Amino acid sequence: MSTLKIGLFGCGCVGGGLYEVLNQTRQLPAVIHKIVVKDPSKKRQVPSSLISFHKEEILDDPAIDIVVELINDSDAAYHIVCDALKKGKHVVSANKKLIAEHLDELILLAKSNGVSFLYEGAVGGSIPVIRNLEEYYNNDTLSSIEGIINGTTNFILTKGNEGIGYAEALAEAQLKGFAEADPTLDVDGFDAKFKLVLLLKHAFGLTTTPDEVFNTGIRHIKQQDIAFAREKGYRIKLIGHGHKLPSGVAGFVAPQFIKNQHPAYFVDNEFNAIIVQAAFADKQLFIGKGAGSFPTASAVLSDISAIQYQYQYEYRKSDTPTNKLTPDFHLHAYIGSASLDDVHSVPMDVTDSVFSSKEYSYKTGQISFQQLRKTDWLEQKQLSLILLPQGIVS
Amino acid sequence: MSTLKIGLFGCGCVGGGLYEVLNQTRQLPAVIHKIVVKDPSKKRQVPSSLISFHKEEILDDPAIDIVVELINDSDAAYHIVCDALKKGKHVVSANKKLIAEHLDELILLAKSNGVSFLYEGAVGGSIPVIRNLEEYYNNDTLSSIEGIINGTTNFILTKGNEGIGYAEALAEAQLKGFAEADPTLDVDGFDAKFKLVLLLKHAFGLTTTPDEVFNTGIRHIKQQDIAFAREKGYRIKLIGHGHKLPSGVAGFVAPQFIKNQHPAYFVDNEFNAIIVQAAFADKQLFIGKGAGSFPTASAVLSDISAIQYQYQYEYRKSDTPTNKLTPDFHLHAYIGSASLDDVHSVPMDVTDSVFSSKEYSYKTGQISFQQLRKTDWLEQKQLSLILLPQGIVS
Repeated sequence: MSTLKIGLFGCGCVGGGLYEVLNQTRQLPAVIHKIVVKDPSKKRQVPSSLISFHKEEILDDPAIDIVVELINDSDAAYHIVCDALKKGKHVVSANKKLIAEHLDELILLAKSNGVSFLYEGAVGGSIPVIRNLEEYYNNDTLSSIEGIINGTTNFILTKGNEGIGYAEALAEAQLKGFAEADPTLDVDGFDAKFKLVLLLKHAFGLTTTPDEVFNTGIRHIKQQDIAFAREKGYRIKLIGHGHKLPSGVAGFVAPQFIKNQHPAYFVDNEFNAIIVQAAFADKQLFIGKGAGSFPTASAVLSDISAIQYQYQYEYRKSDTPTNKLTPDFHLHAYIGSASLDDVHSVPMDVTDSVFSSKEYSYKTGQISFQQLRKTDWLEQKQLSLILLPQGIVS
Repeated sequence: MSTLKIGLFGCGCVGGGLYEVLNQTRQLPAVIHKIVVKDPSKKRQVPSSLISFHKEEILDDPAIDIVVELINDSDAAYHIVCDALKKGKHVVSANKKLIAEHLDELILLAKSNGVSFLYEGAVGGSIPVIRNLEEYYNNDTLSSIEGIINGTTNFILTKGNEGIGYAEALAEAQLKGFAEADPTLDVDGFDAKFKLVLLLKHAFGLTTTPDEVFNTGIRHIKQQDIAFAREKGYRIKLIGHGHKLPSGVAGFVAPQFIKNQHPAYFVDNEFNAIIVQAAFADKQLFIGKGAGSFPTASAVLSDISAIQYQYQYEYRKSDTPTNKLTPDFHLHAYIGSASLDDVHSVPMDVTDSVFSSKEYSYKTGQISFQQLRKTDWLEQKQLSLILLPQGIVS
């Protein structure tokens, strides 16, 4: 087997990890031929002879077989990936935002140019979930996929369950390199949503875009919500949901109270957990590190290795009767706020309980998803929205 | 895609499940063409027109593409599988005993006849572990694979942790169809060992046979051992181990006390859990139902589906420098018995603690694996051997 030549874009956390992983893995006949980076002033742990600041040095080099795209700027990444595919290069990316926003276009580009476009590292860090959905659950009747798909928020929530406040936990996550300086994408559930878009495609053959998928996050969760969880023996987790219903697929991202029977209850810190429910295989749980340099780099490496064997995603489920997102379902939810009026500003179809006190109030009950979407939860910082353990009303 | 014709051997728990699963899965262009069974007197939930009692009706029928072998008798199964492969038919089997005993021969037969031989259902029920080891961890530096790979013993041990005695728990497992009338293969760790042999092949490219792998089980675990576990906050699990050491791979099956930080601590009842440790991907945990008709049938179905896409195991790791089993390591172990003399009959290199009372005695410490193998634990029913949470001495 001839040695594959890799052109790498980005040499940050994951890119640097990939360089190191490749250096330490002897079995793989692949080498990094060139690394294109943006900032000339930054110190890097790679030989300077590999470094370039011009994307053409990778894109126009016919010796390069695979472009590995690991930069933060998803717009720049989009152009790089498109160019690379058009030039007949295989592409491996871990950029969930880019992929979620342009998936069908990129699939088509890869197909028409006869190359592979792989992105296992974009979802669940080291967990091989895309490959498993693609290869293993293609015949069985998948009924749902859900899980913890953002390591940063899981780290913060774990600290919360230990009694550490949001701000302090976020600072620690930033210190550990799990959270960006601007944590919006993580804490507001956008990152989880990008990943969910990819999961929905590979689980159900469902094509959607981030704009169409509802997300809310953990930024507005209050001490009182955490106290409620503790009283009930719950833990709060940010969960990405994809459930097949008669009317279509319910797909959304929201925080949820879960009980200790829930397979993700004990999945803490930066770990991710993905639960696949299939008619015959029953519940399958995949757990692994969802963040960090090496776990993601190892997923990227696995894609590089698969390209050696001419692997490509087949998207077989896309040929089956089109699955669509549905807004027609109800959720068991908890809504909390310092003011009871705020709590009541969101109408529920069935209210199961109301608690009010001078400091904090909440109610629990059933709310239609269409109603729930009317509130801009990311803006209404006085309001907490947390799903109850039952989740979707069946 | 043309419809694949399946010849099915066996229509028991898994075979019957497969028939039902195939009937309910519309996406898969595969049909059961003939089912060969042994006992003409048994009532079955399948059309009698499909049933035959002569293996030639499958093996000699050129219309049949795939032989699915799901019978209990591993000697008969061996002849069926060999014949089928020689006649150019793909084979799917879930018979871990047969496969563990004849793996390299069967691989060679499949290869020389240009057909696929797949057996995902043989390990971990519905967990796609073979496929993941084969496809996903082929480049990364796998350092260990371990886990709960026998659902029957995990069910019995779960009951034990709840205070229910061995005999009663075994009876309940038998009632639920998790345990055979003769539970030897399960409770003495043979079944887990067969599976471990397959895991070692796909994880490390290591060829071995059941005879070479040490196993002991849970039959002789006593109430006092369970009480010891409860005192310490441990749970007892039967664990299959495969650890890469400088001198080779440590591979064995033994019960172990595990703490609540261990990823398999909360994996109860008939669930299986497989933990893969890789240098860069770090710990990966796969959890799923390890026993029962449908979970195994769904794994079998997944193999059938893969054959449609010409999938076959590549055994790429077998080409890397040969891995061998090593006996050169030490274990942290607990040895218990009603008599202190019995406990002392097994010498340890380092004894950390000794407890003795009129009713029960035990000691903990470090024992060399070579020393440990000298005792026939399956015969010495007065002795309990349970590894301590630290496992292998590093």
